Amino acid sequence: MKISFKNDYSEGCHPAILQKIMDSNMEQDEGYGMDQYSRDARRFISEKIGINEEQIHFISVGTQTNLLALSALLKPYEYVIAAESGHIVYVEAGAIEAIGHKIIHLHTQPDGKIRTEDLDVFFGKMSEIHNIQIPRLLYISNTTELGGVYSKEDLQQLFAYCKRKNLLLYMDGARLGSAMTASGLTLKDIATYTDAFYIGATKNGGMMGEALVFCRPELNEGFSILQKQRGATLAKGRFLGIQFAELFRDDLYLQLAEHANKMATILADAIHAAGFDFLSVPVSNQIFPILPNIVMDRLAERYAFYPWKKIDSDFTAIRLITSWATKEENVHAFVEDLQSLT
Amino acid sequence: MKISFKNDYSEGCHPAILQKIMDSNMEQDEGYGMDQYSRDARRFISEKIGINEEQIHFISVGTQTNLLALSALLKPYEYVIAAESGHIVYVEAGAIEAIGHKIIHLHTQPDGKIRTEDLDVFFGKMSEIHNIQIPRLLYISNTTELGGVYSKEDLQQLFAYCKRKNLLLYMDGARLGSAMTASGLTLKDIATYTDAFYIGATKNGGMMGEALVFCRPELNEGFSILQKQRGATLAKGRFLGIQFAELFRDDLYLQLAEHANKMATILADAIHAAGFDFLSVPVSNQIFPILPNIVMDRLAERYAFYPWKKIDSDFTAIRLITSWATKEENVHAFVEDLQSLT
Amino acid sequence: MKISFKNDYSEGCHPAILQKIMDSNMEQDEGYGMDQYSRDARRFISEKIGINEEQIHFISVGTQTNLLALSALLKPYEYVIAAESGHIVYVEAGAIEAIGHKIIHLHTQPDGKIRTEDLDVFFGKMSEIHNIQIPRLLYISNTTELGGVYSKEDLQQLFAYCKRKNLLLYMDGARLGSAMTASGLTLKDIATYTDAFYIGATKNGGMMGEALVFCRPELNEGFSILQKQRGATLAKGRFLGIQFAELFRDDLYLQLAEHANKMATILADAIHAAGFDFLSVPVSNQIFPILPNIVMDRLAERYAFYPWKKIDSDFTAIRLITSWATKEENVHAFVEDLQSLT
Amino acid sequence: MKISFKNDYSEGCHPAILQKIMDSNMEQDEGYGMDQYSRDARRFISEKIGINEEQIHFISVGTQTNLLALSALLKPYEYVIAAESGHIVYVEAGAIEAIGHKIIHLHTQPDGKIRTEDLDVFFGKMSEIHNIQIPRLLYISNTTELGGVYSKEDLQQLFAYCKRKNLLLYMDGARLGSAMTASGLTLKDIATYTDAFYIGATKNGGMMGEALVFCRPELNEGFSILQKQRGATLAKGRFLGIQFAELFRDDLYLQLAEHANKMATILADAIHAAGFDFLSVPVSNQIFPILPNIVMDRLAERYAFYPWKKIDSDFTAIRLITSWATKEENVHAFVEDLQSLT
Repeated sequence: MKISFKNDYSEGCHPAILQKIMDSNMEQDEGYGMDQYSRDARRFISEKIGINEEQIHFISVGTQTNLLALSALLKPYEYVIAAESGHIVYVEAGAIEAIGHKIIHLHTQPDGKIRTEDLDVFFGKMSEIHNIQIPRLLYISNTTELGGVYSKEDLQQLFAYCKRKNLLLYMDGARLGSAMTASGLTLKDIATYTDAFYIGATKNGGMMGEALVFCRPELNEGFSILQKQRGATLAKGRFLGIQFAELFRDDLYLQLAEHANKMATILADAIHAAGFDFLSVPVSNQIFPILPNIVMDRLAERYAFYPWKKIDSDFTAIRLITSWATKEENVHAFVEDLQSLT
Repeated sequence: MKISFKNDYSEGCHPAILQKIMDSNMEQDEGYGMDQYSRDARRFISEKIGINEEQIHFISVGTQTNLLALSALLKPYEYVIAAESGHIVYVEAGAIEAIGHKIIHLHTQPDGKIRTEDLDVFFGKMSEIHNIQIPRLLYISNTTELGGVYSKEDLQQLFAYCKRKNLLLYMDGARLGSAMTASGLTLKDIATYTDAFYIGATKNGGMMGEALVFCRPELNEGFSILQKQRGATLAKGRFLGIQFAELFRDDLYLQLAEHANKMATILADAIHAAGFDFLSVPVSNQIFPILPNIVMDRLAERYAFYPWKKIDSDFTAIRLITSWATKEENVHAFVEDLQSLT
Repeated sequence: MKISFKNDYSEGCHPAILQKIMDSNMEQDEGYGMDQYSRDARRFISEKIGINEEQIHFISVGTQTNLLALSALLKPYEYVIAAESGHIVYVEAGAIEAIGHKIIHLHTQPDGKIRTEDLDVFFGKMSEIHNIQIPRLLYISNTTELGGVYSKEDLQQLFAYCKRKNLLLYMDGARLGSAMTASGLTLKDIATYTDAFYIGATKNGGMMGEALVFCRPELNEGFSILQKQRGATLAKGRFLGIQFAELFRDDLYLQLAEHANKMATILADAIHAAGFDFLSVPVSNQIFPILPNIVMDRLAERYAFYPWKKIDSDFTAIRLITSWATKEENVHAFVEDLQSLT
Repeated sequence: MKISFKNDYSEGCHPAILQKIMDSNMEQDEGYGMDQYSRDARRFISEKIGINEEQIHFISVGTQTNLLALSALLKPYEYVIAAESGHIVYVEAGAIEAIGHKIIHLHTQPDGKIRTEDLDVFFGKMSEIHNIQIPRLLYISNTTELGGVYSKEDLQQLFAYCKRKNLLLYMDGARLGSAMTASGLTLKDIATYTDAFYIGATKNGGMMGEALVFCRPELNEGFSILQKQRGATLAKGRFLGIQFAELFRDDLYLQLAEHANKMATILADAIHAAGFDFLSVPVSNQIFPILPNIVMDRLAERYAFYPWKKIDSDFTAIRLITSWATKEENVHAFVEDLQSLT
């Protein structure tokens, strides 16, 4: 069995979550998120942000969270802007279009971050097309799908730009823990400079589950019915509640992300020391080193990872992902094998 | 804290499932249902039915399963027929209409079962309406939402009727364990006399999860993409796989349902012995005794349950539900309290 | 060729419309409803009602108008209530469900009108169902599909009821001319006691076309984009504009409806005088006499009409429809033939 | 009033159509496309192609035709490929996404035609993205929105490519008359080398209306119900039938396009003779000359047209469109004015 750096959802979930599930298993409680654990979890998160508990919703899957959030935020004819590397663009099987909304793709720098300059280019080009509709929502991911991280300043700038253009700003937080840890962003910052976002647990210690946050009460109206209508409300909501209660009672969520980032840093430092470059500067739990094919192939015998982008006939960028569950010994093993190959 | 007979999803999940989750937690495995446990679970179920493993899909929520199945089975303009007590009619927040399909409601007998006579009445009435479209799918639930159970003979008759009318037959199996136990139906019978159905685990021992089965390979085409597009594919699919592997490796699924039915039988027998009647004959884990309001109110002080239907100014039918987790001592307590009140 | 009383769209359109189309044919004008005729037509209608011209939209087809209006008025999870005889229920091929909204069907009296008592029965029954969503819009047709007419008082009562229940009131006006003529309702009355409605021209002198009116500006927002997105905006909008300009410059619309109603009255009076009864009291351009099958069959040799409802083995209710184009000589011929048969 | 070269839908419709509408106006006929004129029109077209009449459908609006056709041809999760200049991409308000399908945009040469090389680039890039779904339909317009024309050989190549890639080939024929006239393509050729296409009348002599053709019977199944459900079926279908009957009884459709192309050729030749270049080679009724801004501004005082693309600080490409209704005297006036300015 190879050691996997393919993604951050290869293992189960953090033991503290399993322990609480065991301990509470035979308690009778209310269904559909009205149980005590879900209420606790909403309270823990709302207190960190300073919003109402009703503005927080637990959903099982990231794609589902994105499609529900955008369905709630947009009128039927409104468009979305996203980076062409954005998760909703190619890898969610057309989920956003399936609920009726066009996505306009922006070309970005290699880190996948959208900058106001990218938006300027787009709006300039758009002004030459007759009858085009104005987009209504900007979708960003933090971290991006290419490992980039939006800082507080990045968000301030983007949010101000969005308000000038009458755009809602939505943040996909599938890997929000890694972004927060890397940049020092707080949940309160995020809620200040976006209109809605989600806090991903699937890729940071949970079994499954994302916590969708609407930053203003009026955006939240009717959401619970929409969630139920689309089949996204678990009968035994306690299983989502317990996860988020454990992750946000104290700071377990950030601690897990810190481990993931640290493991990625060890890898990145060693790869850099070995003389290799990266598609973009490594700052989070996803790194994209550019390796000679011969090295890549030898590493692939013992480690699982995705080749990401062919650079030329001799070199390929690969993607390495670490997580809360990555064992430090496996990271060192990878580093040693790399060093022995170069 | 009251003892609850409100539903069959008040507790966590069966301990064997939790144990396997603990044991496998730090293993690295593939995502999106390609893990070893999901593969095992599909194999166990497919062997009981005699179909291909690819025709089995694990989905987290019953509403989601219904909407995905009907979306896959129907063209955009095709209608559904269901009993007016059917789960998709009023309590799924319009999920089926939200994916574009009209539901025509049939009035049924108090057990919620659709009989060929009910269909005859409908098709007769329909023949007088100009321009009405012909429905394409008959939705039934087994057990029904009113505790009724379709036997093998019932299904044979309905299926033959459906084929004559060019209707697909789809069975919602949220409480299929209870139905199978009550009637002796096998999974193979069901797959013979329906076009698609699901096996519910949420209400019979699981954390969450339903196993959707397409009975013929051609109905299955493209389903995995559809599931992903609608946000219904868990990254850590192992958590669904483990549940169904445990429930279907041997016969745990039926054993759990047998317990639930047995608990309901004890309740029903005692209620009958105490001289009370039922909305419909009790045969599954949902029973609907008709009690004097004064008795209902006294029982409600110690037990949680739903008043279901006002019968007259003195009597109300209530709904009592038992499950794999119902403690026999609680059933006896209920019975004794009832006896002391009458 | 039989003389047809099958419907009110068997002929072309009123000659005044054709004449204006001829006269203006080679003028160059703006597309998409920005032409001078569409602007005139919006002005004529808005002046009769006392609203902004922007709240009026010309759409080619009734089903399209209903689905666009409801799509604009409702959030994705909101329900509609309609009479089971309502046009959107069975004869629009599931158009409203296809845009995602459940329709709840009310049983009504034989004239197809919804009365507050019918709504009381429904809301009472609904209160016993767990988890049901509250509907958000009441759909009525004036005239109804069974020839009934809502008066000003009827609308006042329904509108007040709707506001208490947080329901929007929407009126399908496919045959609004006939209803206005029969009851003395004005467009201003309708705009006062509904939230949105449409004025049908297809069935009252036009080639095609319905004028959708949103009674309050905030309901109108974004509608033009929605209309374009659903493919419901004619490039040569002048052809819709000319029709409504001709019909509403003065009172041609009402004059045409008056003729239709008068023709129906001649038929109804003669049928009544011949000793026959009706499904509901004849008040508009649709009447439903109950005839002996033997009489029906003889009339069917020379006249085209729909048998509507089997009453018993000897009698059938038929539907007779008159229009702006019905020739008085054909009405008299029918009457004479009826008299000779009885 | 300026003389307009802004588009090909500024005037009414061809006099022969109006005459037939007048002549038949008071005839009683069947609704919903079952009238004699619609039947004639389907027969005339089907005979030119050699397919069944049932495979031809008359629809009022181009956007509507595109969305209905793609809705019929695609499963819910299937994607579309189009040129980024394609009509469905930016100017139909997201109509295709609104029915649930993602559109992938291809960059093309300035004439807007998709070549197999463009598809090769796309499929190559796509192979590097994990989890991306394979598109299912290639959308092309003939003429393109940039005046390009697909010849018979172009279609043969594209169609063969599509079949290798399991893509359906769909052609938007809003300006098909101009394309057929320019290239010698026949309807039979088109039906041989596409899966479905439409013949546009709105921009070539009609009031409104497009004739959608499914080239194989199995693609056609259920389409009439879908059309009705989406509100796209005119009650008085005769008005569409008369148009297509007049246009296709003989060769009026091609004669009108020939006039449009001839008018464009006069313009293009004169502009070329005056020393100006074009965005792409002028071949159809849309031409895109690149003029000095000073010339453009002077022409704009007397003629209406769209500036299309800024070339540099001194030059702009404009769009000139001619039609069946363009008066030759106006073309000559434009040419003379241009010559006097240069």
